[in-house]
Amino acid sequence: MPSTLIKGKYVLCKVGSQDKVEVITDGAVFQKDGEIIDVGKYDTIKACYAADEEIGSDQHMVLPGLVNAHQHTRGVSHLLRGASDDSLELWLIRLLEQKPVDPYLDNMYSIARLIESGVTTVMHSHFPTSPHYEEGVMSALKAFQDGGIRVAFALGIRNQNHLVYEDDQKFLNLLPPSLATRARQYCADWVSEEEYFALFARLHKEYETNTSPTVRILHGPAAPQWCSDELLIRVKRSADEYQTGIHAHMLETIYQKLYAFKRFGKTFVEHLNDIGFLGPGVSFAHCIWVTESDIELLAESGASVCHNPSSNLRSKSGIAPINYMMANGVNVALGMDSFTINDDDDMLQELRLCANLHRPPGLGKLSPTAGELLKMATVNGAKVTLFSKQIGTLEKGKRADIILVSLESMTEPYLEPELGVINVLLGRGKASDVDTVMIDGEIVLRNRQHTRINKGEIVAQLRESLREALKPSDVVRIRLAQELRPYVFEFYKDWQEPVARPFYIYNSA
Amino acid sequence: MPSTLIKGKYVLCKVGSQDKVEVITDGAVFQKDGEIIDVGKYDTIKACYAADEEIGSDQHMVLPGLVNAHQHTRGVSHLLRGASDDSLELWLIRLLEQKPVDPYLDNMYSIARLIESGVTTVMHSHFPTSPHYEEGVMSALKAFQDGGIRVAFALGIRNQNHLVYEDDQKFLNLLPPSLATRARQYCADWVSEEEYFALFARLHKEYETNTSPTVRILHGPAAPQWCSDELLIRVKRSADEYQTGIHAHMLETIYQKLYAFKRFGKTFVEHLNDIGFLGPGVSFAHCIWVTESDIELLAESGASVCHNPSSNLRSKSGIAPINYMMANGVNVALGMDSFTINDDDDMLQELRLCANLHRPPGLGKLSPTAGELLKMATVNGAKVTLFSKQIGTLEKGKRADIILVSLESMTEPYLEPELGVINVLLGRGKASDVDTVMIDGEIVLRNRQHTRINKGEIVAQLRESLREALKPSDVVRIRLAQELRPYVFEFYKDWQEPVARPFYIYNSA
Repeated sequence: MPSTLIKGKYVLCKVGSQDKVEVITDGAVFQKDGEIIDVGKYDTIKACYAADEEIGSDQHMVLPGLVNAHQHTRGVSHLLRGASDDSLELWLIRLLEQKPVDPYLDNMYSIARLIESGVTTVMHSHFPTSPHYEEGVMSALKAFQDGGIRVAFALGIRNQNHLVYEDDQKFLNLLPPSLATRARQYCADWVSEEEYFALFARLHKEYETNTSPTVRILHGPAAPQWCSDELLIRVKRSADEYQTGIHAHMLETIYQKLYAFKRFGKTFVEHLNDIGFLGPGVSFAHCIWVTESDIELLAESGASVCHNPSSNLRSKSGIAPINYMMANGVNVALGMDSFTINDDDDMLQELRLCANLHRPPGLGKLSPTAGELLKMATVNGAKVTLFSKQIGTLEKGKRADIILVSLESMTEPYLEPELGVINVLLGRGKASDVDTVMIDGEIVLRNRQHTRINKGEIVAQLRESLREALKPSDVVRIRLAQELRPYVFEFYKDWQEPVARPFYIYNSA
Repeated sequence: MPSTLIKGKYVLCKVGSQDKVEVITDGAVFQKDGEIIDVGKYDTIKACYAADEEIGSDQHMVLPGLVNAHQHTRGVSHLLRGASDDSLELWLIRLLEQKPVDPYLDNMYSIARLIESGVTTVMHSHFPTSPHYEEGVMSALKAFQDGGIRVAFALGIRNQNHLVYEDDQKFLNLLPPSLATRARQYCADWVSEEEYFALFARLHKEYETNTSPTVRILHGPAAPQWCSDELLIRVKRSADEYQTGIHAHMLETIYQKLYAFKRFGKTFVEHLNDIGFLGPGVSFAHCIWVTESDIELLAESGASVCHNPSSNLRSKSGIAPINYMMANGVNVALGMDSFTINDDDDMLQELRLCANLHRPPGLGKLSPTAGELLKMATVNGAKVTLFSKQIGTLEKGKRADIILVSLESMTEPYLEPELGVINVLLGRGKASDVDTVMIDGEIVLRNRQHTRINKGEIVAQLRESLREALKPSDVVRIRLAQELRPYVFEFYKDWQEPVARPFYIYNSA
């Protein structure tokens, strides 16, 4: 593999102590065989090392690759496939109304956009559909390797409450008989625990023993409302045994918070703590409806939160109180959930939405600092994906996951030289400014052109396949979803939280 | 002026009764001399009219031009000029730290971006700085006319509380003597009422008597905390006399809400109602901190609200409860305040942020419909800018303010033909998808190229002028601002609202 000198007007090396962003002006990074050998002033680096290639310029900013700490395989937009945005509980049913899409192509299309956006590592929460469970998993994994992106692959499983937050049989009893029969079939159609644990063991072995440094296999129990305690405990034991992590959803909506109280008489976090599930290797997507004491429990246990600002708005779920999490020492990473505000997986945009959503009124009130934001998208994400030793900063000995961002449009018409260029990046940077992306020393995007992925071909194949007529089984599934929706709506009608104090107050009656 | 046939795969004519979006598939608009002569199926329109030119295609969507219902002259980003985002009260002081910029070039640069974003009409809130008040006004007005964009020009004035929400002398007494002396000079340096009303009369006469259909002159009293009652009453009387509108800021922050209670023992809306200020020709930017009864008063009076979602987040001001305003019949328009989330004046993005911010949790909870959102950016904006008879819909007899949006990237890789194309526009459209813009029958942007504005030249001139060293007077002003900031922070330290019920609850402790 060639060695590379990467030049930047500004090299953002890392977020240091007290969240200070360490930037080298007129700097450079030198990498060889995928390892960062040195970082410093351009003139010094240039004099010390003979590189096979030099990239970057004084019109670029150099950053660590970004970590998208929560996503699914969703290349083709749900909107374009026929599922409009809705409240999460209804939207999960709407997802069944989508046109099917080839999992390999869909994931490859998603990976192409992620790379264009400067994302070099993803936490992939694999949605545990069945039939074709193993086929879907293998297709997705192949796409990550073909695309050359680093992945923490959280293998998904769920075993209860398939339609609403309630025992399947109890909910099926509320449906007209013909609908219940079809819905029962849907509830039965998921991967079995035995199949899941066997596949997990096989994948773990394969990726622990091969030489690819870019794949981690994690457990991915969908969420506490979707997994029995027995399953969660078994998952936790397995994760300890294999010394790997766990990535789950938690408390995405207020209905999940209410379900936990109905089911356990306490919060999910309290319950998971009681069953010994929490710990440093565990991360949870969303965590919007945590209480103050939940936040303390998460912090004490070392568990992480993967925050998804866009998705939380689009699914009418709320705004996670991350200011309070961070103030209490919870590790908070940033995910896009394949469901961003512009439907385009733009990580810099997501970082900015995150910054702006957490600016509750009040002159002295907390809001995320530039350093905290950058950490969310780098080192904090490295932690949840189990790549902390490899990525997250540009330092000697780390792997070379590096992105070059063009300063041109961010600084039109002018940038005061001594002004905070980090504020400009966070305030104005977009995926379209990402010029070049290197993962593990390999350039996967050069001057906005993919080197590994033929995106035009992927798009053409997706277009062709989406034009095909629906299969009879699709028609059946779509009809099922359309008929179920009003019953799901009805089911939650009377679920209401007693008046509680919000973390953020944005207006007042 | 040539006649034009404008073809679209989808022609969005208007938002009709019950907020139903009326779309003609395979449609067209025919315009002549700036007037819409007919709208219908492409084949029919093509057969009926001989146009000098045909634009658009079956890869375009045709919409009414968008209305940006609140903005200032801010072409060059505050960030790039040296003012970081902050809580509004501190940020207003930070604005004094910016490098100065030529008002004509700055406004022209802003207009270029607005046109690129599909904005054809703006409500311009002219910031009432002085010295050079009249020069600034005339430069800005010239830019609007040279740029060919429709403008409701709200001439700005303020006469009190120049540094904090308190009588200037009382605040100056809190400062060290040398700082107080310099701050007093700043407070004195504003346009006088006599100068203001004389200029208003002159501009009103000029634009009422000339033939340009693209300019309206409105009164622009800055905000109730910045204008005495005497001034507001005089403005209201003048607006009635000249039969024009009034555009002001109101209740942007919680500190303004608290000030109203301190000053009047009631809300600003109640006070403005008492002094007879409210009415159908009056619009207010922001209105975040209104109460339920304020919303009823606004609705009863016929006053409008110009909502600025991005700006309200960036300035830590909050989220205006527009769901409740709309449910109560308040006319709500959408503005960008020259301060959007991406710092780029993207109106489609702003519409989407608006859609997503107002999705509070709860399956049955209100959130804006597609029709409501499109109305905000078209007919509701037409009302506040006093152009209701001319613009806001594509209908016979309206003026030809029309934009063409490319379907290409919005629908990559595929769009189910019968799917809601409006959801796709609202969910995925960006300024970069706006292809062609026509204002009053004239094409001002064609295939993303400006026909009137030499943007490259504007950018080059701005860059050149911003490179110039600061003048001694700038250095004095910047130092003043830096020294004032801690005193402003200190001033508001103990201002706290008694616990109140928020309109939106996004999380709970």
